[in-house]
Amino acid sequence: MTGKFIENISPKEVINRIKELGDNILKGFNDGNPIISFALRGNIKNIEYDEKYDIIKLKEKVGTREFFNLGHVRRFTQTLLVAGLAKKLVERDKTASLREVYYQLKHTIPMLNLNTFEKQEESDAVIEDLERAIKAIREQFHIKAEGRGAIYGDIILKDRKRNDEWNCAKLGRGGWSVPSTIEDVEIGDINADYVLVVEKEAMFDRLIEERFPEKNKAILITGKGQPPRGIRRLVHRLRYEKNMPVYVFTDGDPAGYYIYSVIKRGSMNLSQFSELLATPDAKYIGMTMDDVENYNLLKKGAVVGLEEWDIKRLNELQNYPWFKKSKDWQRQFKKMLSLKIKVEQDALAANSLEFVADTYLPEKISKPEKMLN
Amino acid sequence: MTGKFIENISPKEVINRIKELGDNILKGFNDGNPIISFALRGNIKNIEYDEKYDIIKLKEKVGTREFFNLGHVRRFTQTLLVAGLAKKLVERDKTASLREVYYQLKHTIPMLNLNTFEKQEESDAVIEDLERAIKAIREQFHIKAEGRGAIYGDIILKDRKRNDEWNCAKLGRGGWSVPSTIEDVEIGDINADYVLVVEKEAMFDRLIEERFPEKNKAILITGKGQPPRGIRRLVHRLRYEKNMPVYVFTDGDPAGYYIYSVIKRGSMNLSQFSELLATPDAKYIGMTMDDVENYNLLKKGAVVGLEEWDIKRLNELQNYPWFKKSKDWQRQFKKMLSLKIKVEQDALAANSLEFVADTYLPEKISKPEKMLN
Repeated sequence: MTGKFIENISPKEVINRIKELGDNILKGFNDGNPIISFALRGNIKNIEYDEKYDIIKLKEKVGTREFFNLGHVRRFTQTLLVAGLAKKLVERDKTASLREVYYQLKHTIPMLNLNTFEKQEESDAVIEDLERAIKAIREQFHIKAEGRGAIYGDIILKDRKRNDEWNCAKLGRGGWSVPSTIEDVEIGDINADYVLVVEKEAMFDRLIEERFPEKNKAILITGKGQPPRGIRRLVHRLRYEKNMPVYVFTDGDPAGYYIYSVIKRGSMNLSQFSELLATPDAKYIGMTMDDVENYNLLKKGAVVGLEEWDIKRLNELQNYPWFKKSKDWQRQFKKMLSLKIKVEQDALAANSLEFVADTYLPEKISKPEKMLN
Repeated sequence: MTGKFIENISPKEVINRIKELGDNILKGFNDGNPIISFALRGNIKNIEYDEKYDIIKLKEKVGTREFFNLGHVRRFTQTLLVAGLAKKLVERDKTASLREVYYQLKHTIPMLNLNTFEKQEESDAVIEDLERAIKAIREQFHIKAEGRGAIYGDIILKDRKRNDEWNCAKLGRGGWSVPSTIEDVEIGDINADYVLVVEKEAMFDRLIEERFPEKNKAILITGKGQPPRGIRRLVHRLRYEKNMPVYVFTDGDPAGYYIYSVIKRGSMNLSQFSELLATPDAKYIGMTMDDVENYNLLKKGAVVGLEEWDIKRLNELQNYPWFKKSKDWQRQFKKMLSLKIKVEQDALAANSLEFVADTYLPEKISKPEKMLN
């Protein structure tokens, strides 16, 4: 992994990397020890927080899988099956879902009476292995997850393979449905000052109804809770291809804080690809415990009590290094634990339906000192 | 309820109905017994299956809520709060989500130290009361649920209040993001032969990638599992405003069958509005137990074993009157129970990625005798 943000790799390069993987294995058979090398999977123990770039990265630990090892041979063979399919997908310019990959590759091996894959979890895990073996995200070898989002605002998008071009502010109040992979989407002209990622669809609808994007020159994006990868890629690309500032507006609860964390710094199990998916200088303008006081939400009963699992999750978040180094975040966490409450973005409706668009967001966005980092 | 399909009621009419509700209550106060009358909520006991129109309808049982009844007074007062907000929403041409309604109306009544609403479940239930009291769906008084879907195909849509007009086949592979209420959307020209409702987003993506809509003159719609009301309204309107045949393509499992049932006949708890939401002559072209045999899916291991709860749910479905009268459906259910399997739409990928678009759907759609009704 380099320090700077890596760009898209071409389909040809993806095919070359898969071929190289195959060549190495073949060579291994000739030498008597076929192995596959890949970066180890990310978890809290083998990731590292890169202070300089403010993203979660995978430690450079390399694992291997050996063909002549009874504990490895199943996974080894499965990796070859997935690599073969991935190569075909890229060559034929087709995209398959995780579930389709499972069904395409599942079969019973004659004589052995063994299934190549028993459950989708198995093929999903092997797809991740392949990502870490050839250092490409699965979207680049044309495998995608489910999960759509939506975008609204004065931005031109183009589908490279379809010759379509559209403005996401000219589609009524619906906006464009963002598919789970956007590798063929080109970003054209933007007439906006920033990107606002909104946790909930209902809030996305609210802001469109209030004409917030028009009045504030904002691009709105929603991914329904924890955004799918297509949305994270889109946010990342808007930041790094178009230099758009990115603000994240979520509920003031552990799930909301983690949505922000994933958009900004990447997720642990995809830490090897933070550089393609994360947006390190995104700013948090979601609900805080200070908002609860400033906007009278506590008095109005527009808060929700913390559950046991909220407290457990908050304790985990408090200890993630990237939250730990931030005095502001630590103060919010402590305040939350002492007030024993959380607060949703919809709660701003306790003041008025327009409040979020006319007061809350303009106040937060105009005052960088009110943002969390 | 009339026998024919009722059309949209105007915002003015909605306001009039709410006013009328208020006038009657006021009159009640003068007479000493303020009451609210409404059709009773739908459940398996008080709905009826209308054979003639092939939809689920609410039996015409009327309930009342009395102000001078300790057991009723809370709900009575809550209904007035919701009715007042609904009137304001329509007058101001604003739309609120269920969650926003809850936050807007929740407050502590001074002196009594009582909250108007304790949980969103309470306000949701009262919103349904209001629907049944004024005989309008909540979208008509500008209250909506979360939940978006997507549409793709050669169809012009217009947003009446925004002067936007777009073709859903010219938005790359994303399509238009269908918001949770489409009451302001006008349907323009359509260049297609039918509407295909697809259960899963991944299958929607597959068919777009295969250019199925272009090759087969189809409009694709997905609602991610059980479609939200905006999608059901859209399907209904495509059928009754534009005379488009509607086909439903789901997994071959109890959830998939019930998605079809809800699109076709309405749902039980919204049975009072089947005439606005249901599409009685929709046809099922989803996965069946016959497909499992015809397309070799059993041999390829592309099926999934039935779980305990699948069997329980199948037994319920078997006994719904609209499934009970169908020999074809009963045969499928029995076959499923004896094979003890279910089958997903993605399983067709076991043959090839293109199979669903090149073989499965064209075969089913060209042979009405293969459809279930």
